[in-house]
Parts: sequence; structure tokens; C-alpha cells
Amino acid sequence: MRTDLETRLFEAVDAGFDAQVAFLSELTSHPSIRGQEQSAQTFMADELERRGFDIDRWQIDIADIQHLPGFSPVMGPYDDAINVVGTHRSQTKTGRSLILNGHIDVVPAGPLEMWDSPPFTPRIADGWLYGRGGGDMKAGLASNLFALDALTACGIAPAADVFYQSVVEEECTGNGALACLARGYRADAALIPEPFAEHLVTAQLGVIWFQVHLKGLPTHVAYAGTGANAIEAAIPLIAALHEMEHRWNAAENRTDDYAHMDHALNLNVGKFEGGDWTSSVPAWSIFDVRMAIFPGQSIDAAKAEIEQVICEAARDNDFLRNSLPEIVYHGFHAEGYALSQDSSAKAQSAIAALDGAHRATTGQTLEREAITATTDARFFGLYADTPALVYGPRAEAIHGFNERVDLESMRRITKATALFIADWCGTEDL
Amino acid sequence: MRTDLETRLFEAVDAGFDAQVAFLSELTSHPSIRGQEQSAQTFMADELERRGFDIDRWQIDIADIQHLPGFSPVMGPYDDAINVVGTHRSQTKTGRSLILNGHIDVVPAGPLEMWDSPPFTPRIADGWLYGRGGGDMKAGLASNLFALDALTACGIAPAADVFYQSVVEEECTGNGALACLARGYRADAALIPEPFAEHLVTAQLGVIWFQVHLKGLPTHVAYAGTGANAIEAAIPLIAALHEMEHRWNAAENRTDDYAHMDHALNLNVGKFEGGDWTSSVPAWSIFDVRMAIFPGQSIDAAKAEIEQVICEAARDNDFLRNSLPEIVYHGFHAEGYALSQDSSAKAQSAIAALDGAHRATTGQTLEREAITATTDARFFGLYADTPALVYGPRAEAIHGFNERVDLESMRRITKATALFIADWCGTEDL
Repeated sequence: MRTDLETRLFEAVDAGFDAQVAFLSELTSHPSIRGQEQSAQTFMADELERRGFDIDRWQIDIADIQHLPGFSPVMGPYDDAINVVGTHRSQTKTGRSLILNGHIDVVPAGPLEMWDSPPFTPRIADGWLYGRGGGDMKAGLASNLFALDALTACGIAPAADVFYQSVVEEECTGNGALACLARGYRADAALIPEPFAEHLVTAQLGVIWFQVHLKGLPTHVAYAGTGANAIEAAIPLIAALHEMEHRWNAAENRTDDYAHMDHALNLNVGKFEGGDWTSSVPAWSIFDVRMAIFPGQSIDAAKAEIEQVICEAARDNDFLRNSLPEIVYHGFHAEGYALSQDSSAKAQSAIAALDGAHRATTGQTLEREAITATTDARFFGLYADTPALVYGPRAEAIHGFNERVDLESMRRITKATALFIADWCGTEDL
Repeated sequence: MRTDLETRLFEAVDAGFDAQVAFLSELTSHPSIRGQEQSAQTFMADELERRGFDIDRWQIDIADIQHLPGFSPVMGPYDDAINVVGTHRSQTKTGRSLILNGHIDVVPAGPLEMWDSPPFTPRIADGWLYGRGGGDMKAGLASNLFALDALTACGIAPAADVFYQSVVEEECTGNGALACLARGYRADAALIPEPFAEHLVTAQLGVIWFQVHLKGLPTHVAYAGTGANAIEAAIPLIAALHEMEHRWNAAENRTDDYAHMDHALNLNVGKFEGGDWTSSVPAWSIFDVRMAIFPGQSIDAAKAEIEQVICEAARDNDFLRNSLPEIVYHGFHAEGYALSQDSSAKAQSAIAALDGAHRATTGQTLEREAITATTDARFFGLYADTPALVYGPRAEAIHGFNERVDLESMRRITKATALFIADWCGTEDL
């Protein structure tokens, strides 16, 4: 039996759904790749402000966060890295407080000709919204906001403080979420609607990014035998890294959440650049790698092994032996995090509340999933003693071409989120 | 016994040598990489003009050359591709005419920190001039000019027309030299002082440049198993190209000039670029390749085999099989050229004249060399029935770091060039 409040909240989500889709479409039209998030953040701040939230909008300052656990080395200047938080202050403060977190940054679109339609001109077809970032994770930013709107439409508000966070830097460091912690935002639970198909994420991997800088000995290609090709020198190093990837994935190294996965840890050579002139033996190359680690695996130990593997492979190269690769870290130094390992009463009750909200919305049991990516959940779970529930809509081709999000899935997530807020925070009259 | 003219020309070269080194140093300070040759060409035109040459300075127009044999597909627009030719008109026209050719373009310097001193701030130490382009081939432009100056200082001039050419595009297409042909410049012989250690180049290879464009299937790296990495997909293609390189170098494929060389034909992966984001499986990569061919080897047949090798290797890749690589040609479509195969009386007498000039200068026999690079000589030899003598100073690390040219070698080349001009063209009073 559906309660009266459930029915009213669902009707409110349905009533607002066209506006929600329009909001998602507009938000997705902002090409908020790293360094270009400002217009999207202005849009978010305006939307929050006209709903009556207290707006906190600030530029991330490295000095505020670089000493904190979870900090990742930075890729570029943060002159343009702006976080937005909208705060709802409860009148009664009788419930449990909540952070509704989402990231505004999206990954690059890649070659435009490989998209069926322009990535930042969202379009809707057959119940999907297409566009870069629509799934990862602007639909989640929309569901967080329109779930709160549903309460408002029912004449109620959360009976605890709610912090609506729109953060940058999720896709490369997580320093946006870390900056929210450093600024003092704390709550009894966090919800992050990343697009994992309406499952509850019970574990996430850690991620390390590193760059390998290789030197070569350039000559005119006429004398290529006397030079050392810095591009081709990368090939055995990449092979050695894949052997390391294979070892790390071995059954004896897996944690319980990943015991059933043969290949949870993926190593990705995501970028490669080298050489200046076709007829010169290239003097330099740089390649960018992402590698995952299991929850509990030490970042420092992982880095030490990565460095050892690269340098050992380099010693097989006559030139690199005396000019060893330089390994540069910029980007993720992310530990793994497993909600499944949080036995606290707070975590158990937050999960129970989400279980109930999901069942009331879908009629189904909330499925659990250990994911092979990272999310900002680690900051709340590992460094702020706050259970972080990752639970969002179904999307496809995130980081790919023709990224899309299932709009009916977003509707269900919005409804479940509204119920979860009402349950977790309690309600008070507007 | 040295003739009186020889002695006077040598003394004139010696007397002008400080000025010649200063000229070389100033010319090398112009960073005349592709698209940035203008200031160097202005310097050249001014130097020619104040010596009384007729100046022809023009922008290359693709329409003038694209139908001609030897044309190479163009890398970029030619808005900034300017040739300079200075013409000496003989009063008597009793001798044989001559083209003195050199290229003004230089290859990129590469990472600056790998140079001991800035590449475009030439410095002299221990008898060498260091700087990008000092050897390849601004010392040759200097020796051509100061050899003519030596005649002037002796009160004589060539008794035939001499065309002093400072051309662009030698390092990527040769279209600068081709544009001189198209403009009507012809002579009985050509001299190109490329830096081959005071040897006479008797054969040069052909060169083909091609780009391989690969597509991938991008996904979030969390699902890397479902994507197709366009960077790593290049690795087996590069291996297959090296197998082709090995086959082409086989003894049965070598022409006489190269019979003694196990590996004359070098394949170079000179540039590589791919991917946009470390945590996305890369959707694209592009790599640039230089491959050499023997004189007489067909460019069309070579291209067909290159394409076949790449596509066959691509068919072993599950993704590429249905999205075959695109092969783009921009840059060298250069045939090989062997002066050694030119049995004409004109060629034999030009070689004899250079033999004599070299012996008179150095006391040594002029050594022959088949080189593993290409030069602009092919245009004169193959397409204008003009024997082209490649004979220039000793340089080291051309296309590398700390490129340098031996100044005493440049002095000898200048002297030998002055003698060669006086012999080949004959002389008349100023």
C-alpha cells in the first residue's frame, strides 16, 4: 500500500517532469568540460537561488586542500574551478541531514564526426536524452534538484539541513568534492546519483593516473639506426604495464566485493603524444595511463610497483637504460571505497531508507553492485565518516559517442530520491 | 701546381670568411621552420639584392605545380611559402649556366631543454657552429653565396647565367624546388651543398610520407573490455610496417648504389597523437610515418603495398576489421635519383669539374656516397635533364639536438665551389 505522502510526491515528480527534462536538456547544452564549467555552474546557481537556497559559490584554492587525505595532484591551474553549493536550512532540525552531491564536469566529446548529432546539442528520441554529460551525471543533478522540488510542491521541506552540491573535478581528481569537505560541509549521509542503472553501489575501485615521459635520441631518419625512437620505445613499456594489470587482477588479490570479477582493474592508455617531424627520429613521447586498484590497496605501494615495472622494462632499451622514463602524477590519487564494509548504524539505516524508497518506487528489491570505476563517494565515506549512497539512473556510452540517459529511469530515481529525502530527513511544513 | 686564379679565389674566400661565418650565424638565428621562413627569406633577398642580383621572390601557387611530375601532396596552405631566386646575368654568355640551390626551411627543434644552448641562438665553439639548420643547410646557402663573392673579389664574374635559389619545402615535399622549375629556371647543371661531409652524392633514396588514422570504440575505462583502444591498436600495425621495411631492404631488392647496405630504407614513426582523456578508452589515433624507397622503385606500387600491409594487419583487430584505417598522404612523394646512372656528357663533365675543384682544394680525391635520404636534386635530375651535384660541408646531428656544422669544412666547400663555378661557367671581367 502506497502512503498518501508517497502518492503525492510521485504525482509531484510526474507533474514537474517536463520541466525536469527541459532543465536536463539545458544543463547538458553547457559544454562543461574541465576548465569550462562556469556557464553550467552559473545556470545551477541561478536555479538554486530562485528556489530559495543559500548559495555558496567559490573558487577552489589548492592551499585549502592539498594537505588533506584524498587530495590528488592537480592537472592545471584552478583559476576556473568553481564549486556551487545550495543550502536548505531546516526550521525544526528534527531529522538527519543530507548531502545531495553531483558533478558538473564532463569528459571531452572526442571527434565530433563520430557523434550522430552534436554532443552539446541534446536531443530526445525514444525515451533517451542524447548528449555528452547527459548521463554522467547531469541527469543526477536534475534528479537531486527535482526531488527537492517535489517536496516543495507538496508543501513540505526536509526537516534537516540539506546541502545540494554541484562540484567540479570529479572526472580527474575529485578535488571538487574534497573542497566541499574542506569548507566544512558535513551531513549524516550523502547521495550521489551517478548513472549505475538504479543499483546501489556497494564498492568502488581506486584510480591512479600517471604520465610516462620518454626521451629519445633524435637524428635524421636517414640514420635511424643511430637514433632512439621515443615513440616506439613506449610499446614494451605498455606491454609490461598490461602484465602488471594481469597480476593485480589475480584471484588472490581481489577483495570480497570483486571476488567474482576476472578483470575489475582496467589499465587504459588514454592519451599518447610524441614527435615533431615525420622525418626525424622522435626525441620525446608522453603517454597517459589510468590504472585501478582494489579498495584497501595502498596508493603508495601501487605507485612504487608502477614505477618499478616501467623502469625495469626501460632497462631493456639501450637508450632508455641511461635516460630512464620520468613518471609524472597529475590527476587521480583515489583510494577505493566499499560502503559494504561500513557496519555503522548510520550506514545501515541510510541503506535501509534507500531500500525502502526504491521498493516503493519500482516494486523491486534494490540491487547491489560493485563498480569498476571511482566516484566522489570516497571522500564522504573514507574521510568524513559519512555513508555515501551512489544510486542513479541508467545511462549508456558514458565517456563514449552518443552518450545517452534513460528518461524514465531518471523519473524513477527522482521519485525514489524524493521518498528517501522525506524518510531520511523527515519533513516539516513549508 | 695551383693556378693563379685558384690562389686568388682561395685568398678571397679566406679574406671573406669572417663575414661568411657572421652571415651563417645571422641566417641560423632565423627560426625558419615550415611556415616561418619569411624573415630568413627577407634576409636572403636583401643580401642578394645588395650584391646586384636580380631578385625574384614569389609565393608558391599550388595551381602552378600540382600537375607536374614530382609534386607532393601539401601539408598546409602555401600562403606563407615564399621562394627567393637571385639571378646573375652574364655579359658574354660563353660558359655553361648553373643553378646554385639550397633550402631555407629547417626541421623543428624539438624540446628546448634537450639542447645545450638555444637552437636559434647560434654559437661557435671549437670550430663548430651550433644551431638548428646551421648544417642542414644554411652553411650550404652561405658557401654558394660566398663562393660567388670570391669571384667578385677577384674582379671576375661567371661567364654564364647563374641562378642562386633559396627555396622552401625541402624538408617535407620538395615543392619549393619544383616551383623553381615551373617558373622556368633551367641551367646546364645544379649544385646543392647539402651537408654530406664533402662527398659527392651519387644516389639518393625516394621518400614517402603517410599518416595512418585509426578509430576506436570509446567507453568509460571501467568497461574497457567493451571498448577498442585506438592507441594500442596502432602497435601491431607498426610491427607489420617494420616487417615490410625488412622485406624491402632484402638484398634482391637493392639497386647497385645500395647493394652494400643492409638497411638503407628506414621506416620512421615520427609523430603519434591520440586520445582525449585518461579515463576514456581512446576513440582515435593518428601516426605519421616516413618510409624510403630505392631509385627506380615506383611510388604508386610502394603506396599500394603500404596500404595492403596496414589493412591486413588491421583485419586482425576485431574493431578495426569493420572500421579500417584511413591512410592519408601529405608530404613527400619523392622518387629516388641516381646521378651515377646519368651517362650524359653534361653529367660527366660536371662531375669532372667538381672532381678537379675538390682535388685542387683538398688535395684528396672526391669520394662518392649513396645517401639514405632525399634531396631536391631529384627535380633537376629526373624532371629537367640537369645533372645535380650534391656536395656540401660536414655537419652532425642534423634533425637532432645540438646540430652543428664544421666551419673549416664550410671553408673548403666554399673554395671548391668557387673553383667549380669558375671552371663550369667560365669567367668574364666584371
